[in-house]
Amino acid sequence: MTWQATVMTLFPEAFPGVLGISLAGRALENKTWSCSTYDLRQCGLGRHRAVDDTPFGGGAGMVIRADVADAAFSAVDAPADVPRVFLTPRGTPLRQKDVVRYAGAPGVVLMCGRFEGVDERVLEAHNVEQVSVGDYVLSGGEAAAQVFLDACVRLLPGVMGSDQSGVEESFSDGLLEYPHYTRPAEWQGRKVPDVLLSGNHAAIAAWRQKKAEETTRERRPDLWSAWLARREKNETAAGMSGQAG
Amino acid sequence: MTWQATVMTLFPEAFPGVLGISLAGRALENKTWSCSTYDLRQCGLGRHRAVDDTPFGGGAGMVIRADVADAAFSAVDAPADVPRVFLTPRGTPLRQKDVVRYAGAPGVVLMCGRFEGVDERVLEAHNVEQVSVGDYVLSGGEAAAQVFLDACVRLLPGVMGSDQSGVEESFSDGLLEYPHYTRPAEWQGRKVPDVLLSGNHAAIAAWRQKKAEETTRERRPDLWSAWLARREKNETAAGMSGQAG
Repeated sequence: MTWQATVMTLFPEAFPGVLGISLAGRALENKTWSCSTYDLRQCGLGRHRAVDDTPFGGGAGMVIRADVADAAFSAVDAPADVPRVFLTPRGTPLRQKDVVRYAGAPGVVLMCGRFEGVDERVLEAHNVEQVSVGDYVLSGGEAAAQVFLDACVRLLPGVMGSDQSGVEESFSDGLLEYPHYTRPAEWQGRKVPDVLLSGNHAAIAAWRQKKAEETTRERRPDLWSAWLARREKNETAAGMSGQAG
Repeated sequence: MTWQATVMTLFPEAFPGVLGISLAGRALENKTWSCSTYDLRQCGLGRHRAVDDTPFGGGAGMVIRADVADAAFSAVDAPADVPRVFLTPRGTPLRQKDVVRYAGAPGVVLMCGRFEGVDERVLEAHNVEQVSVGDYVLSGGEAAAQVFLDACVRLLPGVMGSDQSGVEESFSDGLLEYPHYTRPAEWQGRKVPDVLLSGNHAAIAAWRQKKAEETTRERRPDLWSAWLARREKNETAAGMSGQAG
């Protein structure tokens, strides 16, 4: 079954964009997924098809009107089990576990903001999830939508080859991944760590685990704290079941 | 002066992609920034111009070779004050304050990974910053590069109109932004909050601050804790200077 992405945007010409190449592009050709767009301007008001207006309460920027966004959601008319997502830095951060959930749905409707945002009432009325791809501000939701869809599409059945699927990945166990090395074994006086050439699988696994922990501790104190807390809880649980047995 | 983005990629045809439209597209036409690509395949080895090889120590996936990536960095030959960035989920998270720093540099060189990643030695040798756009896995760095560049370009001088610049934004004060409302004042039985129609600027500012705090507390416990800690520190500092005076 084709996973159906619908993107509501003022810039339909931006799609599929980067999603037309490589893995996502092949999956698009194979009809593993589809990428349709809905031009918000179709629901614009008046001669100029205005989609936005000034914010109540004052302030800079423009806000996409509730009636315009509502008409667009109604025109798209996606099945009830398809998540509606508005991409905004105000949203809940997108995590790999969310990507797994979206990839497991029949598809997704993505609303791309421009200007200051969208009238909050329409987001409430259509049960729209507010999602952020990262802690930075973009000129609009289109680039964020492409990141969102790329993350989902690679998880669809058959998109990654068997040599790539099931790979140990960053975030899958709450740690960042270990560093990678390939040939040449010595390059500009820099050698690959000896253990990786040893053929000792247990030693390699231990070294990679150590490196994953070090990298996470250095770069992601947030993930590191969460991982330590989970480990402690598991050790406590293991200790308790040992006592019970 | 033109802000120079150079993207090292196996898919140069993916650029400028979404960056060719709207704000970023106009800024590209105006030469506020430039977007050149360097095809990693140019540095590939042998008849098939191979850029990758199997990882030392085993495991699925392929790794971009140190010698190939090194040749590409050398060919690009960016000035020393241009940051080199490799986009990877193993990296330090991109934050708005980092975007400000990159936008203030003369430009940026972005390395887009595919496969499992890039040999760690070349990243060390070229002082490459490892940066993540979010806690999810992409099929390659290209979509991440477009998000990265969109965030930077909108901060370049003249890109945002005067009506948009200086807008209160998510992250600028450590809180998510308050919700937005525009006309119609009543839509499908849903009214805009009364205070926004009151004309009372102090009350509006107080309501927006409260909403920003509520949204941050609900959606981003991490930002909320940090904001509380900063507030407490400021209050302590204010109390102390009061005592000193």
